[in-house]
Amino acid sequence: MKGAIDFYFDFSSPYAYFAAMEIDKLGEKHGLPVHWRPILLGAIFKKTGAKPLLQTPLKGDYAQHDLERTARLIRLPFALPVNFPFAALAACRAYYWIRREDEGLAKSFAKNIFKAGYQMRLDISDPQTVIDLSSALGLDSGRTGPALQSESVKEELRNEVSFAEQRGVFGSPFFIYEDEPFWGYDRLPTLDAWLTQKGW
Amino acid sequence: MKGAIDFYFDFSSPYAYFAAMEIDKLGEKHGLPVHWRPILLGAIFKKTGAKPLLQTPLKGDYAQHDLERTARLIRLPFALPVNFPFAALAACRAYYWIRREDEGLAKSFAKNIFKAGYQMRLDISDPQTVIDLSSALGLDSGRTGPALQSESVKEELRNEVSFAEQRGVFGSPFFIYEDEPFWGYDRLPTLDAWLTQKGW
Repeated sequence: MKGAIDFYFDFSSPYAYFAAMEIDKLGEKHGLPVHWRPILLGAIFKKTGAKPLLQTPLKGDYAQHDLERTARLIRLPFALPVNFPFAALAACRAYYWIRREDEGLAKSFAKNIFKAGYQMRLDISDPQTVIDLSSALGLDSGRTGPALQSESVKEELRNEVSFAEQRGVFGSPFFIYEDEPFWGYDRLPTLDAWLTQKGW
Repeated sequence: MKGAIDFYFDFSSPYAYFAAMEIDKLGEKHGLPVHWRPILLGAIFKKTGAKPLLQTPLKGDYAQHDLERTARLIRLPFALPVNFPFAALAACRAYYWIRREDEGLAKSFAKNIFKAGYQMRLDISDPQTVIDLSSALGLDSGRTGPALQSESVKEELRNEVSFAEQRGVFGSPFFIYEDEPFWGYDRLPTLDAWLTQKGW
């Protein structure tokens, strides 16, 4: 039992997109599974008083600049998604629905959502885009559409958001390894060092 | 003309304390002067809607944990100052007053303020502590006290805060190299890479 990394994120978080392209490699390096747990930060932001990053005066301009600079540094295609910021309700529900059958497939789906949104500028806030991307992975679109409206899937997402908040998650991306929290894409090297040194 | 690094900070920012212990070494590495520019973030926070870090729900608990974890990692003594968070009015004014005569001496004073607050838990919000620390550097306490109340020193600080805001400074620590902004202690490695690669 070596534990696992929980990767919390909001699909509407550009820094989560960067992290999503790297976190599984970090898990492999340390022989640890990475559990992806998409959440909706809107409700948590209400409690912390946080505003959507790019809409904050001064900080928003800086963040826009820093995102583009970071993307160039790590050589990753990057554009702000259309309809940004958005509530990624359909994508989150689809993720947990797919995860019931296959966590690996759910991760592939989540990565495709990120790429569709931040590389291809497809409207990932649109349930139809979500259904199309799940179909492309071989899922039956006749089942995905209704699944996004099913009470049990809605409930599962609500539970995930509530559990995340209980664990102290307040931003995206957010990593938890054996109750040790790491917030932000910038903290990936810290998480890496923590796993290497087994804490300090 | 190789430019310079402007180091903006609020004495009431623990991450600025970490940065203050490292930034001059980074400047030396790249052969660049580092200009320390203490500011008061209170007025800027009102515009961005930011709350003092440790008073923010969820985020505050995380920050407290992250500060202690970071201090252990870099092996730096660390405690939250008394009366935290505080408005570092006297320390800022003293800095700019000392800088008029000697920027190097002003930097030594600022470092001592940080160490007094974050290592020795002296009350650095207290003008008397500020006067004592400047006296310890050889400054005439009979001049420092009145200087902290002089209109021209007050005006200089106001101008610095206003100029910082014009340049997009919204947090602490904040570094600017030739108009390129870097926010946060976590961005020091990015600034280092930027200076090495001459941008990207």
